[in-house]
Amino acid sequence: MTTMINRQILLKSRPFGSPTEANFELVESSILEPGEGRFLTRTIYLSLDPYMRGRMSGVKSYTEPQALNAVMQGGTVSRVVSSRHPGFVEGDYVLGNDGWQEYAVSDGKGCRKLDPSKGPLSYALGVLGMPGLTAYAALFDVGRPKKGETVVVSAASGAVGSVVGQIAKIQGCRAVGLAGSDEKCDFVTKELGFDACINYKTEDLHVSLTTTCPEGIDIYYDNVAGRVLEAVLKHLNIGARIPLVGLISQYNATEMPPGPNLMPLLVKRALIQGFLVSDHYHRMPDFLRDVSSWIKAGKIKYREDIANGIEEAPRAFLRLFSGENFGKLIVQVSEDSNRTI
Amino acid sequence: MTTMINRQILLKSRPFGSPTEANFELVESSILEPGEGRFLTRTIYLSLDPYMRGRMSGVKSYTEPQALNAVMQGGTVSRVVSSRHPGFVEGDYVLGNDGWQEYAVSDGKGCRKLDPSKGPLSYALGVLGMPGLTAYAALFDVGRPKKGETVVVSAASGAVGSVVGQIAKIQGCRAVGLAGSDEKCDFVTKELGFDACINYKTEDLHVSLTTTCPEGIDIYYDNVAGRVLEAVLKHLNIGARIPLVGLISQYNATEMPPGPNLMPLLVKRALIQGFLVSDHYHRMPDFLRDVSSWIKAGKIKYREDIANGIEEAPRAFLRLFSGENFGKLIVQVSEDSNRTI
Repeated sequence: MTTMINRQILLKSRPFGSPTEANFELVESSILEPGEGRFLTRTIYLSLDPYMRGRMSGVKSYTEPQALNAVMQGGTVSRVVSSRHPGFVEGDYVLGNDGWQEYAVSDGKGCRKLDPSKGPLSYALGVLGMPGLTAYAALFDVGRPKKGETVVVSAASGAVGSVVGQIAKIQGCRAVGLAGSDEKCDFVTKELGFDACINYKTEDLHVSLTTTCPEGIDIYYDNVAGRVLEAVLKHLNIGARIPLVGLISQYNATEMPPGPNLMPLLVKRALIQGFLVSDHYHRMPDFLRDVSSWIKAGKIKYREDIANGIEEAPRAFLRLFSGENFGKLIVQVSEDSNRTI
Repeated sequence: MTTMINRQILLKSRPFGSPTEANFELVESSILEPGEGRFLTRTIYLSLDPYMRGRMSGVKSYTEPQALNAVMQGGTVSRVVSSRHPGFVEGDYVLGNDGWQEYAVSDGKGCRKLDPSKGPLSYALGVLGMPGLTAYAALFDVGRPKKGETVVVSAASGAVGSVVGQIAKIQGCRAVGLAGSDEKCDFVTKELGFDACINYKTEDLHVSLTTTCPEGIDIYYDNVAGRVLEAVLKHLNIGARIPLVGLISQYNATEMPPGPNLMPLLVKRALIQGFLVSDHYHRMPDFLRDVSSWIKAGKIKYREDIANGIEEAPRAFLRLFSGENFGKLIVQVSEDSNRTI
């Protein structure tokens, strides 16, 4: 072992409104030896995701809140350093939930081994992981896309939205994204192949939705809620479906803002349905089969936004809410000997 | 024929906010002779329904708006006075859409003959008509009730809500209503057999929903939207379903008020789906079979609120929005020789 200490990021205080670096604390602890039936891992990649903001608030919603003065929770790709577990040996790559720290001891529950020959290890935190499954299952199972329909997706350059639009294209739909900068919009149309992308910060949403969705909107994959949802409701087609997957626009709100008027739902017999990926892990085999093959065929492209070092995690996390991140946000915590790019 | 004139109510001006009697005009016209393939009817009952308010606004939503200076549209039960139509003879009872007038000429399209021996003729405008089908199809096809679930319905003493709650009870659900007076709440629980009813004007909605729905809400059949919907969202169970059937609370609004924050939908993976009965007429045979038999078996009770004379229609209509009506609102336009009650 080259180091005897484990650097960890704890939640020190709960944010009121937007989180700041002062809500986190970097501490050093000693590395524990794994007991019988356990193994020690070194974190390679840590995933940073918007849902973490909700857990920091201390309010129980669909999961227990993040405890104060405990290591921040989060998905990780790690390598086994030493093992007293029959199912894991030194050198194995593991997808787990070790959180914001450099080392962790695990009993293997909720872990999945990764084969580095199948593609970049970090993809297991993004396009081939929870965000990708979120895109896949909510689009197919709530959105139910049909060829020729128009699919609009917010946060279109992000980890989920980028996959949604590309799958929509594969299904023969028109894909229109919403993103927060011209650079992101260029990426969404030129790299990812969406038919159009609206810069929601500079464009008039009603005008742009009219021009980019001349035949109306059949599916709105909503990651943000707020005024984008309100504008979209006025452009729905009869029988439209809205998977409500995220409400990023209000995660830092200090009180819940009102939502859009729901009259258009009735007039258009449309559906809004809340979606949590945790209900949909039974779709993982279908998802991995389809999306892996689409990546191999070059039909799905994927962009990562990588911060370096566990100490950078708090600062990087804040970029999720300012719109500064561009691509799936992860923290590289230690070397990835498989990474050639 | 005992009269040579046809009294009609026209839409004279479009309301801004709440309609008033000044928006309507009573005119007299001469009765037309039916041409070949047509028949003349005398209106017995005229249905007054909240959806009419939307059509008065002149904005196209799911149907064409009510034209100015034209007879107000509306469902009717009539008797054939004379006929040159092969399918209808003098004395037939007909369910049609003759609107707010004493006589009408029809080509039979959209008409259905009624058998007065099967029950009160006026039921075809309510519990066995469009409002009843609305209750039945939205509850079963969007709400999908399961035994033991809790079903909440707003406007619970009304034409739709009263049927929703009674069907919920027949399905083995707990039924909780919301109504606007203690008298209506008494009717809902004592006459209709709901488990509980909340007076939304005098009670604290959160407290009352907590006490009347101790196991949370699985289905909210929404006729009103607004603050009741907002309160209900905080009491949803996982996987709850909300048929959005009406937004009475805002039909007279001069601009669209904001809706509720939608975070609870995501947290509870719940669904709101807009519902228009016009999409569901294929359910009519199932509906008539089931609800007729439930009425005969005494499992569904039904209350009517009857105004007398076509000239009373405007004033009666306004009571739909003030909450003064109590039961299905209809206007008796001429004598019903079958009515024994």
